Amino acid sequence: MARFIRVDMSSRQVKSENVADKYLILGGRALTSQLVADEVPATCDPLGPFNKLVIAPGLLSGTSAPSSGRLSVGGKSPLTGGIKESNAGGITSQKLANLGIKAVILEGKPADKGWFLLKITPDGEELLPADDLVGKGTYEVTAICRERFGDKVGVITIGPAGEMLMHAAGVTNNDGDGNSSRYAGRGGLGAVMGSKGLKAIVVDSPKTFEAPVKDPERFKAAAKKFSQILLDNPTCGKGLPAYGTNVLMNIINEAGTLPTRNFKFGRFDKAAEVGGEKLAEVAKARGGKATHACHPGCVMRCSNVYPMPDGKVCAPVEYETAWAFGPNLEIGELDVIAKLNYICNDVGLDTIETGCTLGVLMEAGVIPFGDGQAAISALEEVAKGTPLGRIIGSGSANAGKVYGVTRVPAVKGQGIPAYDPRACKGNGVTYATTPMGADHTAGYAVTANILKVGGYVNPLEPAGQVELSRNLQVATAALDSTGLCLFVAFAVLDNPEGLPTIVEMINAQYGTSLTVDDVTALGQNVLKTERQFNQQAGFTSADDRLPEFFYNEELPPHNTKFDVKDEELDRVFNFQ
Amino acid sequence: MARFIRVDMSSRQVKSENVADKYLILGGRALTSQLVADEVPATCDPLGPFNKLVIAPGLLSGTSAPSSGRLSVGGKSPLTGGIKESNAGGITSQKLANLGIKAVILEGKPADKGWFLLKITPDGEELLPADDLVGKGTYEVTAICRERFGDKVGVITIGPAGEMLMHAAGVTNNDGDGNSSRYAGRGGLGAVMGSKGLKAIVVDSPKTFEAPVKDPERFKAAAKKFSQILLDNPTCGKGLPAYGTNVLMNIINEAGTLPTRNFKFGRFDKAAEVGGEKLAEVAKARGGKATHACHPGCVMRCSNVYPMPDGKVCAPVEYETAWAFGPNLEIGELDVIAKLNYICNDVGLDTIETGCTLGVLMEAGVIPFGDGQAAISALEEVAKGTPLGRIIGSGSANAGKVYGVTRVPAVKGQGIPAYDPRACKGNGVTYATTPMGADHTAGYAVTANILKVGGYVNPLEPAGQVELSRNLQVATAALDSTGLCLFVAFAVLDNPEGLPTIVEMINAQYGTSLTVDDVTALGQNVLKTERQFNQQAGFTSADDRLPEFFYNEELPPHNTKFDVKDEELDRVFNFQ
Repeated sequence: MARFIRVDMSSRQVKSENVADKYLILGGRALTSQLVADEVPATCDPLGPFNKLVIAPGLLSGTSAPSSGRLSVGGKSPLTGGIKESNAGGITSQKLANLGIKAVILEGKPADKGWFLLKITPDGEELLPADDLVGKGTYEVTAICRERFGDKVGVITIGPAGEMLMHAAGVTNNDGDGNSSRYAGRGGLGAVMGSKGLKAIVVDSPKTFEAPVKDPERFKAAAKKFSQILLDNPTCGKGLPAYGTNVLMNIINEAGTLPTRNFKFGRFDKAAEVGGEKLAEVAKARGGKATHACHPGCVMRCSNVYPMPDGKVCAPVEYETAWAFGPNLEIGELDVIAKLNYICNDVGLDTIETGCTLGVLMEAGVIPFGDGQAAISALEEVAKGTPLGRIIGSGSANAGKVYGVTRVPAVKGQGIPAYDPRACKGNGVTYATTPMGADHTAGYAVTANILKVGGYVNPLEPAGQVELSRNLQVATAALDSTGLCLFVAFAVLDNPEGLPTIVEMINAQYGTSLTVDDVTALGQNVLKTERQFNQQAGFTSADDRLPEFFYNEELPPHNTKFDVKDEELDRVFNFQ
Repeated sequence: MARFIRVDMSSRQVKSENVADKYLILGGRALTSQLVADEVPATCDPLGPFNKLVIAPGLLSGTSAPSSGRLSVGGKSPLTGGIKESNAGGITSQKLANLGIKAVILEGKPADKGWFLLKITPDGEELLPADDLVGKGTYEVTAICRERFGDKVGVITIGPAGEMLMHAAGVTNNDGDGNSSRYAGRGGLGAVMGSKGLKAIVVDSPKTFEAPVKDPERFKAAAKKFSQILLDNPTCGKGLPAYGTNVLMNIINEAGTLPTRNFKFGRFDKAAEVGGEKLAEVAKARGGKATHACHPGCVMRCSNVYPMPDGKVCAPVEYETAWAFGPNLEIGELDVIAKLNYICNDVGLDTIETGCTLGVLMEAGVIPFGDGQAAISALEEVAKGTPLGRIIGSGSANAGKVYGVTRVPAVKGQGIPAYDPRACKGNGVTYATTPMGADHTAGYAVTANILKVGGYVNPLEPAGQVELSRNLQVATAALDSTGLCLFVAFAVLDNPEGLPTIVEMINAQYGTSLTVDDVTALGQNVLKTERQFNQQAGFTSADDRLPEFFYNEELPPHNTKFDVKDEELDRVFNFQ
């Protein structure tokens, strides 16, 4: 029986409640966004008592559907001031789904300062005191919880950054090896969890793939077919398993849209030094892994395990992170990148946001560009809560305000990821308009702009970008609701049987008779709900714009500016 | 011949240009807001090349109209993101007006880092290199300029805070004694001036009261009558000259609406220790002054000269500042308040904003409440540009974000001044709705709420506050355009001849035939223009609200919350 776990942190009461019909066919982002829209006042303080944190597995999570273990975390974002969903791999989505839990809803705010841990098992749920975990990094917290509750548990946790209510704090959970670095990183939802006084959620479930399915045989056939579709696709079946996401480094550099030196240039002369091929080579040489699954049942296995010189392991080093701490800061050493990545993972900060913030601080002259040791020293301030550490933890837009920087790569207060909007204009449209704040995953136009997957739209011209971004944003909103990894999109965009097979899995699981059009409608509905929330929160079309410098500074080597017109940007959501 | 001085800081060109007819009958705030609305793109970066800084005397400035020497400074605010006008006393408004200058318009942004000084004399205007003034406080800069250009010059300048583009930086100018502490403090316009690379404007004019007047005899009669109206009013003629603005301390404390300990309480047990009566006693005992005029021709002389134990002089210590560093921080020592005030004046920060920011840092536990020495040490970080100094200089809302504080007293990013909105609800309406960001001067409902001037509206009840605030906001927008000090309102509200006499002065000066109704229309127009700019910049009714805690926490001793309904707030500008 599907249920919500509702935790009132004001009274410290935990309730298991039935799921209203309207929520039964929602999952992941569709569910978190709908619950937030229904229960959270749009104008509330994101760190106050009226915000809620909603954690939900996807619709297909906990089944044998391949690569379906994404966990969605939603709430009103302290970073953007708008609605937010951020999702991650790791093992907790499947575990929650196998316990019949559609969502965990954290609400209220404690009057006193005690910290708690929510323990979820097949026998029930309870809040346990967790003051002993306070101040500890996510690696240690996860290790302690696995020791205390068994090494099969999943642990959702925040680091000191989330405890300290830093706006760039993420929520993380662990992979099957106990590695606590699968981050729902974006938007500062870790600070929302921190504001509730909850340090961790431990999910103890013996099952992984046994979430209820109405028609198991039909489901099995569809899942098998979908698995084959993924394996047959060159990116999903070969590229990602070989080099992971960081295979993009050299591709994006070659395309001239790799943001370098805080979005000053589109190419980095040391890109090859920090790309996926090099990473695989070093990782393997040191006994690490160039391919690794973040959750059971993933066929793409795009993750990696990178042993660092100090004996610790950073797993994974993703493309976005390698970019954020590499080209973006003009740092060309993988070991420095891994170290910055590790510190972020441990203290509990989003790596993209933190890379953008360090870039802003370099722009301000606080840290020299290219100085890896200075960047590491600065980042180590975060755990100490020093003024500089606080500024770093508050994200790029806030840091820009504190230092009076005008070249701040952020939209709606959230840092722009690893594709420059001037030479990958479809992504520029997504950054500007998605209700999520600058987010590459919300409408990953790199596909058609650069990778020539699902067609081709010239990345240097404004034509066609709005339509491209719109279609991708709709599809992504739907996909983010299934628990499927976004990377299945490479196969879905290239294989006409991809989307119908996803729909077939959902229908087999829920006994529904959805069509492909219904999936589009679902995606549109999610966006409508999110946009409406943001409008109520005070967002207008003025928020759907890129920072000024993208319109006025040319990006080498293509020497292009962002020139998609405002009126065009305002047509992205013309289906509403 | 009325003219604009237009300074393009990109090309470093200075032009004197004719004033278009539409601007001829505007002055002060009406002129700065109209120019900003006409020439600045609403969505531009406040510290980028497209913002402009407009400095304008009031309509009556430079004549013998009493208390008419206010200088308006306008632009898009880095603090609020909206349109901003901030005005100050001092001698430069009269000097500019006597040179026939309706406004100085600073625009563009230099590509390199050189700093300049704009010298304005009867013989012309020129930019001079000013790198030698960089890093210097406003006291020293003013002294150097008076030494270099003669001790009668007026000096408009910014401190290191403005150079460092801090969002709480103000623009200051000097009084007749050369004291550089007449601040257009609010909204961070000092950072806008800093972003243009302009350190100071030196205004050398031999005349003070000889701005052109069409009908001198008629004007003289009206000005004389207006002077008498002021002198006959108990507040303008007796209260303000005796104790200055800080006479309010005990009154507001008694009323239970003196924000204490970052807006936790409405009374401060040491209020009498930091109030105007005590200040007058100490100042006089130390050879200072309890009454002092900030510009020639002021009959209210509400300023003061406070000698500090270290031999320096803080002039003046105003009520708002005494509150910001006193009750707001639970500091009960005048000497500490004066020291904090002096540091702010010198480094170039708005005292209200800085007091709110220190309150937020105390709320966050960075500095203990009541610890004056810790507050002084923290404030001394600003000039050094340390991370903590940067946070302080960035204002209360930004500091709140950096520290994850939810009890941040700010609206539209700007700190709330010295009257708690829960026990002076008319001011609460003004804070919430004025396009200026939280600003007591924009619609000073303390008059009818507490002082019983111009009627009485119970400050503890929501009834009548919207109408009160609306009428005051309209009247203030008009008054801010004349160059008259806001304090003439005490007399104008109490004497039916007040407003007609102001209109008579304007008509005599400009040869117009305005009526009292035209003045209301002018005020409404200013507000319309400002609101429209803010709407284009992305403001909505969601920005016209107080912070959450004012709606949810009761303020002792009256134990009231802010309960003017949202729908009511949205009716403030129903004349539009």
